[in-house]
Amino acid sequence: MYEGPIQDLIDELARLPGVGPKSAQRLAFWLVKAPADDARRLAQAIVQAKERIFFCRECGNVAEGDICRVCKDESRDRTLICVVEEPKDAATIEKASLIKGRFHILGGAISPLDGIGPDDLRVQELLDRVERDHVIEVILATNPNLEGNATAMYVAAMLKPLGVKVTRLASGLPVGGDLEYADEVTLSQALEGRREM
Amino acid sequence: MYEGPIQDLIDELARLPGVGPKSAQRLAFWLVKAPADDARRLAQAIVQAKERIFFCRECGNVAEGDICRVCKDESRDRTLICVVEEPKDAATIEKASLIKGRFHILGGAISPLDGIGPDDLRVQELLDRVERDHVIEVILATNPNLEGNATAMYVAAMLKPLGVKVTRLASGLPVGGDLEYADEVTLSQALEGRREM
Repeated sequence: MYEGPIQDLIDELARLPGVGPKSAQRLAFWLVKAPADDARRLAQAIVQAKERIFFCRECGNVAEGDICRVCKDESRDRTLICVVEEPKDAATIEKASLIKGRFHILGGAISPLDGIGPDDLRVQELLDRVERDHVIEVILATNPNLEGNATAMYVAAMLKPLGVKVTRLASGLPVGGDLEYADEVTLSQALEGRREM
Repeated sequence: MYEGPIQDLIDELARLPGVGPKSAQRLAFWLVKAPADDARRLAQAIVQAKERIFFCRECGNVAEGDICRVCKDESRDRTLICVVEEPKDAATIEKASLIKGRFHILGGAISPLDGIGPDDLRVQELLDRVERDHVIEVILATNPNLEGNATAMYVAAMLKPLGVKVTRLASGLPVGGDLEYADEVTLSQALEGRREM
């Protein structure tokens, strides 16, 4: 539809997740009009991210070297591991400074529909760490949805024989939320997990 | 929040229009996980678009050289010019093969709130073309909104002294639409522009 380079750019942008042909067109024209420096910096950031980002050999998180910032930090408790699906989940928890221990990134959740089975996740690496570091507690912080729950159940079953304490993040009403708008499943979980005051 | 290169990439992506911090994070992780070739091609397309895309000296559309495909094509009627706001508008009309003539891109619409006045648009270039090419008709295809209408009125006033025929795309009910959901302004325009059957 457009001349060479602009059509190429639109086509490449449209391959990004959640970017349709119309958004790709909007982004492409924005880039063409933007200062050359801005566009160059974006292109460089893409190349740099591919060249300089590795995955931590301990926890599987994104890292600038072969080991990530958290795993490098000897002040972090080795005996507490928080298991999440993706690096972004670890980042969310880390931002709130909630875990004094370390993370373990599974790399997704069990989802037969997407063809992701237990063998596609970094479960064996977790079992190895638990044994090697004499881990006391593993907190399963996979997403509170169907896939995340199935994954948590699977990982918990694998950890059981190792005698480690396995916990799961509580489900319930979000703080600041409205009882009126809570769905039935959340409500039933909140009731089930009620605590004495 | 993340280590160097991935945070850089998220920051750069978040500068794109319509891309918030969460989307930028999603795109960045997609790129990190994508095959190296895909990411490299996107980076290259951005650089290439900046280096190889120019604006046609005739109509102002994006072009690979100093003149665009349409203006280069001698079979296109020089005496009919369709005026649009942006290159993407010309592409939409061109895709439907509706205009046998040529285009003129204004580069936006008059919008005092955004600080865009008549002098920021390529109006003088249009007047020059109309005189030089003995243009018979100018079709004003700016957007059917406040800014587009104001721009059309301004351009029409400027063209008047040259004795050229000036037309505006019809406003009315969209084909396949539902009368029930038409807004009042569209309905009043449809009534005003009614045609005998």
